[in-house]
Amino acid sequence: MMVGTFATAITAAAQDVPDLQTPKSPLVLKAQGSFFVGGDLINAAAGDLGGRAAGQIVINQMYAEYMIPQGATHVPVVMIEGGGLSGKSWETTPDGRMGFDEYFVRQSHPVYVVDQVWRGRSGSDVAVFNKVRAGTLLPGELPNMIRTSAEVAWSVFRFGPSFGVPWPDEQFPVDHVVEFYKQGVPSFSILAPGAPNPNYKELSDLGIKLNGAVLMGHSQSGLFPIEAALVDTSGIKGLILAEAGAPAAYTDAQIAKLATVPILVYFSDHLGPGEQARFDAFQAFINRINAAGGNAQMLHPPALGIFGNSHMFMLDKNNLQIADLILKWIDENVDSKKVAKK
Amino acid sequence: MMVGTFATAITAAAQDVPDLQTPKSPLVLKAQGSFFVGGDLINAAAGDLGGRAAGQIVINQMYAEYMIPQGATHVPVVMIEGGGLSGKSWETTPDGRMGFDEYFVRQSHPVYVVDQVWRGRSGSDVAVFNKVRAGTLLPGELPNMIRTSAEVAWSVFRFGPSFGVPWPDEQFPVDHVVEFYKQGVPSFSILAPGAPNPNYKELSDLGIKLNGAVLMGHSQSGLFPIEAALVDTSGIKGLILAEAGAPAAYTDAQIAKLATVPILVYFSDHLGPGEQARFDAFQAFINRINAAGGNAQMLHPPALGIFGNSHMFMLDKNNLQIADLILKWIDENVDSKKVAKK
Repeated sequence: MMVGTFATAITAAAQDVPDLQTPKSPLVLKAQGSFFVGGDLINAAAGDLGGRAAGQIVINQMYAEYMIPQGATHVPVVMIEGGGLSGKSWETTPDGRMGFDEYFVRQSHPVYVVDQVWRGRSGSDVAVFNKVRAGTLLPGELPNMIRTSAEVAWSVFRFGPSFGVPWPDEQFPVDHVVEFYKQGVPSFSILAPGAPNPNYKELSDLGIKLNGAVLMGHSQSGLFPIEAALVDTSGIKGLILAEAGAPAAYTDAQIAKLATVPILVYFSDHLGPGEQARFDAFQAFINRINAAGGNAQMLHPPALGIFGNSHMFMLDKNNLQIADLILKWIDENVDSKKVAKK
Repeated sequence: MMVGTFATAITAAAQDVPDLQTPKSPLVLKAQGSFFVGGDLINAAAGDLGGRAAGQIVINQMYAEYMIPQGATHVPVVMIEGGGLSGKSWETTPDGRMGFDEYFVRQSHPVYVVDQVWRGRSGSDVAVFNKVRAGTLLPGELPNMIRTSAEVAWSVFRFGPSFGVPWPDEQFPVDHVVEFYKQGVPSFSILAPGAPNPNYKELSDLGIKLNGAVLMGHSQSGLFPIEAALVDTSGIKGLILAEAGAPAAYTDAQIAKLATVPILVYFSDHLGPGEQARFDAFQAFINRINAAGGNAQMLHPPALGIFGNSHMFMLDKNNLQIADLILKWIDENVDSKKVAKK
């Protein structure tokens, strides 16, 4: 039954180009392009490179694409994708509407969309795969490569109460859900236990390179902005933690450091028990930051009378309404502070 | 010695953001964004999804990002990356200059940059990896995951006669070569013998969706435009085969089909014996197309007095000079033909 429904949706998705919407006014960019942050030059053995000769390769680099609006007057925003996704999740929605990336640019923010290290265009080290293939490592050393099925995504991303059934007020464009499933990419994270995740320092470094930026993480990367700030706050003007996993048990010293940066926590609607527990943990985190003299807030659209948003709020039908709330927070807590200092 | 040199280069690369050049005039876009072409909805077993529950996922989709200039008057161009790379190779150069994507847009062409199926943001099926990890497939079933070392790339991409030594007239920005190595991504091609490569039909489909486009392939994808045209020429206005592998032994029927589309073959400078053999094979291919009433040409910059271009001509220091030659060919052989028909 559902396969039939989705097969139909796949056919409809063949109309993706006509679906793409053209904004009413042109987008005027001072600059756009892409580059990499960080990366480690390593000496790879021949067997590590899939039959190619031994030699030097770069691993752990982070791809970043950017758009800088003509007359940019607001703080740059770095957008980091959630688990199993690429930077694509901040771009055009599955039903062809404007993504967060362009909308923030149109509100005078330079925007940097990254692919996490080991994902998408950020490449990855392939040594483990080739060693297992050659029999010099055991198969169990392969990373666990997760992809999320349509059925799991439907409930985990809070599209509705049961597979194929949306919430009555659901904001996710479920008629184009198969287009969303196409966003899934594998992650080749091969992080030794205790090794620092290179994403953290690279995000902190990116903020420094940009002379200050707001970092916005989502879901699996929801805590990355905190971790980047704990590496170095000097390039970080604000943290946006969207639909994140539970905050860690930060030390008082860590809280004191985080209290120097404005923090926005975001949770969508239809919180299940797991999400409610994380929501509550973040409320406690917010209280602790503010008790330490910081500035942390919760943004929860239902509290403002906005209902039905999903885990993938940046793709929801009212995504620009949510963007406006986030932009207002940036304006009042980051940009206006900068102006006040002058 | 070279490690020391590259370690220095890595340090210099930490200045990548200041390296990024700002064009003299703003880029005015009617629209920009991204979407997917194609994809197959499959039922995945639980073990195939890395511990997640069984269910439907989409595989074999192709990511495409696009920019449409305000007042676009020329034919859309689809750019396809070479082996071990992502669509990034058509974007900003390793030393921060404008990439082919933006330059073509600034010459009034809508541009679509894809990531090949199984690469970058196009995701991939992870079933084989998880089956090997679980012991239900033998390690030898893993794909051979190639990455190209700095040493191999230096000669194969024709940066110079020996590693670390550029040709005297070398156009590749070798002082930023480590930034180029960061573009390397693995490919997870798991194509059953004899199975059609989904890239071909999806590129043909993309041309149809765009109501006609020029397809430009490079290196490992250098023959993809031909294969896409052999699927269906109806959406294909021109083929650009850059630094490609040797053409196949096409049948007369295939040649007759290809002869209905303008074809440009491109080879850079410093051809070694392998490249010269491919160059010669393409000259024979061009002759055969033209004998069948078609319109095929060779573009070889040294024949025009332009020397020192590398395999990565789109990143070379004179990349926009090469782009102008390609744009001139499009103008004279595709766009003007369209005008003449009116």
